[in-house]
Amino acid sequence: MNIEPIHHAPPPEEITARIGRLQVLMEERKLDYYVSFSTDNIYYLTNFANYVHERPFVLVIPVRGTPHFVVPRLEIPHVLARAIGKLHLVEYLEFPARDGENWFDRLGDILRDAKQVGVESICPLQIYEAITAQCVRTDLIDDLRMIKSPYEMGRMVHAAQIATDAMADLLANARPGRTLQEVSAAGSRFMFERLRTDSPSLNILATKILSVFQPRSVAHDPHNFTDLDMVMEAGGPHVSVLNAVMNGYGTEIERTFFLGHVPEEAKRPYEVMMEARRLTFELTRPGTPMSEVDKKVAEVIVTAGYENGLLTRTGHGMGVTAHEGPFLAEGDRRILQPGMSFTIEPGIFLPGIGGFRHSDTILLTEKGNISLTYAPDSLEDMTLDI
Amino acid sequence: MNIEPIHHAPPPEEITARIGRLQVLMEERKLDYYVSFSTDNIYYLTNFANYVHERPFVLVIPVRGTPHFVVPRLEIPHVLARAIGKLHLVEYLEFPARDGENWFDRLGDILRDAKQVGVESICPLQIYEAITAQCVRTDLIDDLRMIKSPYEMGRMVHAAQIATDAMADLLANARPGRTLQEVSAAGSRFMFERLRTDSPSLNILATKILSVFQPRSVAHDPHNFTDLDMVMEAGGPHVSVLNAVMNGYGTEIERTFFLGHVPEEAKRPYEVMMEARRLTFELTRPGTPMSEVDKKVAEVIVTAGYENGLLTRTGHGMGVTAHEGPFLAEGDRRILQPGMSFTIEPGIFLPGIGGFRHSDTILLTEKGNISLTYAPDSLEDMTLDI
Repeated sequence: MNIEPIHHAPPPEEITARIGRLQVLMEERKLDYYVSFSTDNIYYLTNFANYVHERPFVLVIPVRGTPHFVVPRLEIPHVLARAIGKLHLVEYLEFPARDGENWFDRLGDILRDAKQVGVESICPLQIYEAITAQCVRTDLIDDLRMIKSPYEMGRMVHAAQIATDAMADLLANARPGRTLQEVSAAGSRFMFERLRTDSPSLNILATKILSVFQPRSVAHDPHNFTDLDMVMEAGGPHVSVLNAVMNGYGTEIERTFFLGHVPEEAKRPYEVMMEARRLTFELTRPGTPMSEVDKKVAEVIVTAGYENGLLTRTGHGMGVTAHEGPFLAEGDRRILQPGMSFTIEPGIFLPGIGGFRHSDTILLTEKGNISLTYAPDSLEDMTLDI
Repeated sequence: MNIEPIHHAPPPEEITARIGRLQVLMEERKLDYYVSFSTDNIYYLTNFANYVHERPFVLVIPVRGTPHFVVPRLEIPHVLARAIGKLHLVEYLEFPARDGENWFDRLGDILRDAKQVGVESICPLQIYEAITAQCVRTDLIDDLRMIKSPYEMGRMVHAAQIATDAMADLLANARPGRTLQEVSAAGSRFMFERLRTDSPSLNILATKILSVFQPRSVAHDPHNFTDLDMVMEAGGPHVSVLNAVMNGYGTEIERTFFLGHVPEEAKRPYEVMMEARRLTFELTRPGTPMSEVDKKVAEVIVTAGYENGLLTRTGHGMGVTAHEGPFLAEGDRRILQPGMSFTIEPGIFLPGIGGFRHSDTILLTEKGNISLTYAPDSLEDMTLDI
């Protein structure tokens, strides 16, 4: 299956179809309106990316007809420059505004006759309290986002190709002495320049690029990037991490690698990680519960004696963000379905020895999974010359 | 009044004093616990900056004793590397986790005997619903943050000095043809390098640097930075914007400038903006309501005939973010108090003519206001040679 990369903005039909799918779900749940504050959900339904500050942006979707978008007046030209599809813009002057002219006054106008309103799990209390109708907490837009349309698959292929090339560049330039700050700057520049070439109207509010690595001494602690001066060293393991939202679509690729030689104590955890990885690729098929994949993969790691090295679930979803549902996690009972995209990244984290995980971004189809990102993964290939 | 810049992390006594002040307010409001999800509030009370993703970080402050911090297990070394002051760390394995092992189970344990719990306006519904005790919406930490301690004043002076130097650099290099992308990259590099020199343990999760400008054609639309290729032109006005959180403290400076000559139609709006600016500096004294300042300043602009060019309030607060309360806005009835920090930035926005605003970051003292940022502001000085 070959999916062509896409890097143009969504056509209006794409946006209209997403809203239509939401309205079908709203009808089923007997919701008159659905209120969205999540920047990611608003982006998904409008192509407008906002940055959360004290002036709220609230998207209100009626069960039939055109969505209302409550926005501060000074953002209206910005909304017009980016939004795709029909929207009723409802402006308020400022935050805070004079009595009767605040964002919640305008939200109240729209919801005047509402009986039952859907709200997101992340809905801030101040918005929830401004809705006088009966509220139902339900994440319908997040649910829709889990199944990618053909257009979205093309966008994700595009993001993944850039990340694939950036990882090749990072590995080609891996040398003892390179600092985290240098690697971060070089990777960001690489991806940003490619993005700018492909998408001259790049939306920086929908772009977040992370290009980092960890040396052996901290690689067991996967979210530790506190020391920008830390350097690559002979040996390893190092873990390189590229996680990026590129002009609205996310991707991730990570590799565990060594410089020059592989310390003896690193060989077995690497092998076990590879076995867990192989099993994850085998198990991620339509129809399987997410929890079942994570449970069986964790068993491989526990059986090998690394229970204490088990720190993370097997993977997370990917889409208009680079970190979202569904999750390959024991607590996620959802069923794998064609059109889902997620990372495969079982890991083992051993203080004193290092961290071991590769990550790739996967797309699930009727026939099984396709890896959208690519880099070699064998211990031989990941032992780089210095 | 001369405030020495500070760029070291807060001493434990500073953090302890902040928590003590919160607990006094909690006692007054009869709250057993206060639940904080805001990354800015958590940073203020712990020195730990987190990035919001699907794994929640929840800080729970009891009315007496040590705060509890609910965190994902994989972040514990990261929390230990950054947090200052006493904290009970309460871990959960993953999101989502197996039944009984989720973040809300641990939150429930802590709040088992709670009667009345304070929650923030931005509290996500999923956290609010996980609290079974009586909830009271109140923004006590945001209220405390409005009054800066002597330590915080030193941090803000430090951030402001870097921004002041970066603005001088931006203006010295202003030339027709410079693109937004170039200016953005140069300004970010300038500020980042200064920060790294001063603070080797710089926290990138508490650092957000924006260095941009708008040429005449879009300067009437203050949040429009959609075209990264837009260029400086002969004439103007241009508006340059430096807004940054530097290793945990925010600052802002903006200047309206011209290259070579001042178009005739730009002279009067510039003068009116300067009059509004002069009046704001005069009016911002302890004891005055925020709303009164904004109302009187708006009158200057309206009286001059620019009512349609009035798009923004007169200023916004500054602290551990670069955009927060209190607001110099008609809707903000709070009273100006010594220790507050905010921007002064009355603006006029005229399609076809351009945008007119200078912004400086101000600290209010017993005697009046001090500008922490500095750049020339007269039309003569802001007409740059090309």
